[in-house]
Amino acid sequence: MAKVAVLGFGTVGSGVYEIIRDKSFIKTAGEEIDVKYLLDIRDFDNDEIKPYLTKDFNDIINDDEITVVAEVMGGLHPAYEFTKQLLQKGVSVVTSNKELVATYGPELLELAKENNALYMFEASVGGGIPVIRPMTICTKANDIKKIAGILNGTTNYILNEMFAKGKDFESALSDAQAKGYAEKNPAADVEGHDACRKLAILSSMAWGRFVDYNKIPTEGICNITLEDVKYAEAQNCVIKLIGYADVDAEGKIYASVSPMLVSKDMIISSVCDVFNAVSVTGDSLGEAMFYGRGAGKLPTASAVVADIIDCVRHSDSKPHNIEWEVTDEDIMQNYECKKHTYFVRCADTKENIKKYFDNAEFVEIKDNELGFTAADIAENEFRAALENVNSPIAVFKRL
Amino acid sequence: MAKVAVLGFGTVGSGVYEIIRDKSFIKTAGEEIDVKYLLDIRDFDNDEIKPYLTKDFNDIINDDEITVVAEVMGGLHPAYEFTKQLLQKGVSVVTSNKELVATYGPELLELAKENNALYMFEASVGGGIPVIRPMTICTKANDIKKIAGILNGTTNYILNEMFAKGKDFESALSDAQAKGYAEKNPAADVEGHDACRKLAILSSMAWGRFVDYNKIPTEGICNITLEDVKYAEAQNCVIKLIGYADVDAEGKIYASVSPMLVSKDMIISSVCDVFNAVSVTGDSLGEAMFYGRGAGKLPTASAVVADIIDCVRHSDSKPHNIEWEVTDEDIMQNYECKKHTYFVRCADTKENIKKYFDNAEFVEIKDNELGFTAADIAENEFRAALENVNSPIAVFKRL
Repeated sequence: MAKVAVLGFGTVGSGVYEIIRDKSFIKTAGEEIDVKYLLDIRDFDNDEIKPYLTKDFNDIINDDEITVVAEVMGGLHPAYEFTKQLLQKGVSVVTSNKELVATYGPELLELAKENNALYMFEASVGGGIPVIRPMTICTKANDIKKIAGILNGTTNYILNEMFAKGKDFESALSDAQAKGYAEKNPAADVEGHDACRKLAILSSMAWGRFVDYNKIPTEGICNITLEDVKYAEAQNCVIKLIGYADVDAEGKIYASVSPMLVSKDMIISSVCDVFNAVSVTGDSLGEAMFYGRGAGKLPTASAVVADIIDCVRHSDSKPHNIEWEVTDEDIMQNYECKKHTYFVRCADTKENIKKYFDNAEFVEIKDNELGFTAADIAENEFRAALENVNSPIAVFKRL
Repeated sequence: MAKVAVLGFGTVGSGVYEIIRDKSFIKTAGEEIDVKYLLDIRDFDNDEIKPYLTKDFNDIINDDEITVVAEVMGGLHPAYEFTKQLLQKGVSVVTSNKELVATYGPELLELAKENNALYMFEASVGGGIPVIRPMTICTKANDIKKIAGILNGTTNYILNEMFAKGKDFESALSDAQAKGYAEKNPAADVEGHDACRKLAILSSMAWGRFVDYNKIPTEGICNITLEDVKYAEAQNCVIKLIGYADVDAEGKIYASVSPMLVSKDMIISSVCDVFNAVSVTGDSLGEAMFYGRGAGKLPTASAVVADIIDCVRHSDSKPHNIEWEVTDEDIMQNYECKKHTYFVRCADTKENIKKYFDNAEFVEIKDNELGFTAADIAENEFRAALENVNSPIAVFKRL
């Protein structure tokens, strides 16, 4: 019988507790899994969980029966200190805490290895969707070329409402908040920070080098209007908040989070509602995509439990196949020179635009405004040319 | 240095050889992987591979340096005999051979367990897409409720050509043959047998009981016409060859392969070209979908190589987490009573149809013909009522 402690009895924590309680089939190599502690500073009026509740982390760290801990409390502190103490003791830790993984991943992975423990984080990206493990598999027999993901369910829901129902951003956001999909303070979602941390984790997985999320340019969806929606539709596109990353021939990484125009011919454009998807392109595999519910109590908890089971199953031999190299070397590409295809809305004439973007293709759907596409142009050249365009209204990259 | 033998130097086998040769990063726990034998009865005029070629299986079975073998020869015999001998000796075997897994899976998995070896078959379903492993993960913390998959790239290509370009079945098939997507004798693909074997493997994985592919009703796509395409489009649907399986409250399994109407609102409808996708619904997870290239030399070979690496990595402790129970008990649902939503094309009147299908909803797109939908009706009741309908032309189930 493996004894588990759960740090944080919030949404995910209670889901983890319920799945372990209800799934009698959770047996691995003859070992059953049982929850021994639920750590939370809050009081709960619930007789069932009373025997497990504690407010004192020392109960857990001092109990040698505990071999696996699920850290689902979120936030950097004290999650970081708790995780460190546990790994140093040789206790495996599984987590849904993307902020912690994106911030202290290399140190915690190294600490796990040193102490013959595991640090696993399937639930930190894509909620319940198996993403981290398939990525690990893909990276074994493939050079990963690029990643494109819809990594945040809240923003995908909002954009989907704007496209499918013609709601503007504000009313789609209110609707998402009313449904519990968006927080009262929605900044982390709508400004792209949540997606940015997940992209940092995926990029680190893909290329084995720690990608600092602070270095990922991140743009949210707050400024998207129903006019933008019309222009997208006129081009057989939708707008999705995309976490995109690729690698160049020298192994340098490009990563960014931004709302992008996505052709309806691409399957990722069909990811609706609060769903997430991660598309990975490998040199042998071609494109593969993993799709599912990126958040929610039970989906996320099921990924945490899968990690717990793996830790128990590997209690003898630890498969340390994840290492994130940290170097002083600049591992990121020169973003200034990175080529993109841009779509611009502006109040200018075709003649003037053509002077600076000679291959511009135009989209006209309203008076006194023009849309144009500039294909395959370096960011710095694009920005310089755009200086000459009158009244630019909106700029999107195209996936 | 782990030494590997590859049985069969065809499309997949040569891909496996090339990936192992080219990927210097294939190192696990400090062990490099190298090909020592390529078994094939044919002669090859290729100096590079000459040192590895053998026509004699005894070279491999008698060489104690070989710890992992990739069986990518296809067909039941002698693949079955070779695999058995290897597993009995304690050598791990990985395979892309869906026919072998679907036929002898339980015996070979048992044999592997008894001899502390592994039998792995990620490449047998969905080519290079990681499907088997994510399924294994999902089943740990989820009761799987249902599976719906596009499991055959050839038929998906043909159906996609019919919908996107208005080609009829015969010319879409010729086109697929010209492109190398379909065999000269395309029966295994277009009659659904290939998808059927893959669905048997997925169902066995999902519910831990061996599903005999002979018991899966299987219908191909040969009879689908451009008239059917028009009816599907009138209902905002496409037609996909779907491998579908679910489980009832008593744990009995339903599985079938047939062309189905799929609403364009479902993401699986967007799977185009030769791509495959497997959608899995779990009680905790909700729906997850895995998408990618279901065939092809390098995609399939990359899944074989990932399995080889896993075997090498687990050379000490074998994670025997796949067991397919075989019982005398009938594990399949009573198909007669299974409810479906049917779509029927016929040359009858609304009045007559309504007599037997009181909730019928009609689609009219041409003269002297009617389409109607009968929702949520048991197969036997549907068949009995259909007896009274004049001139049924085509019948589809709806996903």
